[in-house]
Amino acid sequence: MHGGDIYTNGILKGRELIDFSSNINPLGIPKSFINHINEAVESTTKYPDIKYRQAIESLKEYTKISKDYFVLGNGAAEVIDLVISCFKKILIVVPSFVEYEIDAKKYDCNIEYSYLRKEDKSYDYEDILYKLKDNQAVIIGNPNNPNGGIIDKNKFKNILEFCEKRNKVVIVDEAFIEFTGDINESYINEVENYKCLFIIRALTKFFGMPGIRFGYGISKNIELLNKIKSKQNPWNINCFAEMAVKYVLKDKEYIQNSLKWIKEERRFLSKKIKEISFIDKVYETNGNYILVKLKGINCIELYDCCLQKGILIRKADNYVGLDETYVRFAIKDRKTNEKLVKVLKKVY
Amino acid sequence: MHGGDIYTNGILKGRELIDFSSNINPLGIPKSFINHINEAVESTTKYPDIKYRQAIESLKEYTKISKDYFVLGNGAAEVIDLVISCFKKILIVVPSFVEYEIDAKKYDCNIEYSYLRKEDKSYDYEDILYKLKDNQAVIIGNPNNPNGGIIDKNKFKNILEFCEKRNKVVIVDEAFIEFTGDINESYINEVENYKCLFIIRALTKFFGMPGIRFGYGISKNIELLNKIKSKQNPWNINCFAEMAVKYVLKDKEYIQNSLKWIKEERRFLSKKIKEISFIDKVYETNGNYILVKLKGINCIELYDCCLQKGILIRKADNYVGLDETYVRFAIKDRKTNEKLVKVLKKVY
Repeated sequence: MHGGDIYTNGILKGRELIDFSSNINPLGIPKSFINHINEAVESTTKYPDIKYRQAIESLKEYTKISKDYFVLGNGAAEVIDLVISCFKKILIVVPSFVEYEIDAKKYDCNIEYSYLRKEDKSYDYEDILYKLKDNQAVIIGNPNNPNGGIIDKNKFKNILEFCEKRNKVVIVDEAFIEFTGDINESYINEVENYKCLFIIRALTKFFGMPGIRFGYGISKNIELLNKIKSKQNPWNINCFAEMAVKYVLKDKEYIQNSLKWIKEERRFLSKKIKEISFIDKVYETNGNYILVKLKGINCIELYDCCLQKGILIRKADNYVGLDETYVRFAIKDRKTNEKLVKVLKKVY
Repeated sequence: MHGGDIYTNGILKGRELIDFSSNINPLGIPKSFINHINEAVESTTKYPDIKYRQAIESLKEYTKISKDYFVLGNGAAEVIDLVISCFKKILIVVPSFVEYEIDAKKYDCNIEYSYLRKEDKSYDYEDILYKLKDNQAVIIGNPNNPNGGIIDKNKFKNILEFCEKRNKVVIVDEAFIEFTGDINESYINEVENYKCLFIIRALTKFFGMPGIRFGYGISKNIELLNKIKSKQNPWNINCFAEMAVKYVLKDKEYIQNSLKWIKEERRFLSKKIKEISFIDKVYETNGNYILVKLKGINCIELYDCCLQKGILIRKADNYVGLDETYVRFAIKDRKTNEKLVKVLKKVY
């Protein structure tokens, strides 16, 4: 269902797989995290601050957003789950992260879908606006996963204005936003202007730390934040995540190296993949992943071919609005990307 | 509300407090955890196994319970929250962990209380059985927090039999069970015999790792386990907790040293505290904490006195069934216990 299962056919069989199925920064663990590991180890014997005041201070410095506007989660997964639990009718822009639907169903929240345009997988802004009339909230990826498209701020303005007036909530999942390389693509600067915005972010993707479990929500809508907080358990963030927040967000070297890497490799891998014979279409991406449409081979066949060569890819057939002709590749470092290209070229 | 807030009047004011308010093993971080820290650091870049197969294998080895009977939580807090969310009417044996009530209220679950006997703070087994007729589940600490009493298995048998027959659930919170020094005090050996049992445990207390966030539930009631699992988010356990489970549960040296320490210090501190003039009563404890009844001073006054000397204690006035004449002390190492006794002796 998700990417990243390097266990079932990998580790648990004593085999190391190259994971192109989950979209994690390949530059690895930020040095600033490793350098302060003892600080976290020492705090394992203490309960974390139940209010996580230092972590919120670090998020404030990183985002320049008021400390009152944050809610912290055990991974973005917790934040997504809890914000969705606050609604009875939600519009999901799809294809997108599978958990949105799972969470909505868990809470008996009615789901409506707005599909990306078939041709170029861009957002259908008119459709979103139209369907919002009958929903309490919309959840949309920026950039969107699995295709990597980003929101056109001019075209989205109507939607924001509409939601602001009608007390609807616009949940923007920015888990991959840093990979765009342009902070102006984020909706974070609009948080002060639109109470309707609820932005989700995480350390998971850009800072390469899915194991740490740290996500956060940002909104000026204090009632919504309080509603979410009232559903949370105490001490939901562990001390290693607390330490990570404190240091990696100001790790300029890691951030700059990552931006340099993604700029180069996004171009490189997109170009190389376009040359593969059985790839029908490569969608333009601002993320660290590439959605492609296949021809003459389906995603299960390609998945099996790649797995045989020790490479795990993401079949995209369980995304709403996609089918077995789609797969998603993570963008990794040059050497690893070349390995993928080599394997793909040999498929047939 | 909780113990362990060394931040508000401590760290955030640049001041280190001796924390007698939260009940954590003072032997510190198990060496087996520190020795494998690199393994966890390396896994921060990977998503944890969404099924946590290795962690469950380790729990199976530690408890000798079937792998199918576990549910894992981001701290015992998550397990408590989710199991309580499954009921509409619950009996809480009080005074006990404050979160039971908070969770029940969160889910609009009706609460009934069974109070410990006034005199010796022992469980009122007849009252529990009687009140269970009208409730779907009971939650009871073994040993109970804040007093440290343990369940008398002979007297509790009626209750188990009754619940087994009537499809009611007996939630036994064994967060402190290892401190009793006798595995026969645990209900873990009855899990196979009673489907009605749901046992909660954690690495938090005995293994001294509240920062790591790891708790687990054990039950033969697969429907209940599945109900809980369906409410959980993916990857709810971080990779440092995963690593901890793998190593600390088989850290025999840590376990043996801890058992030796608690046996000696429980006796020592209980004895010393009995000598303090303003302490009316010291309740018998099987945990790593001591509940006392004060005379001539209330818990707020004593809290302030101790805080002035750099010692944080747990006012027990927010426990249902207790009042401002109660405080709880954690049991720490000899040197630190002596510091507490010295401070207490000087109060007046």
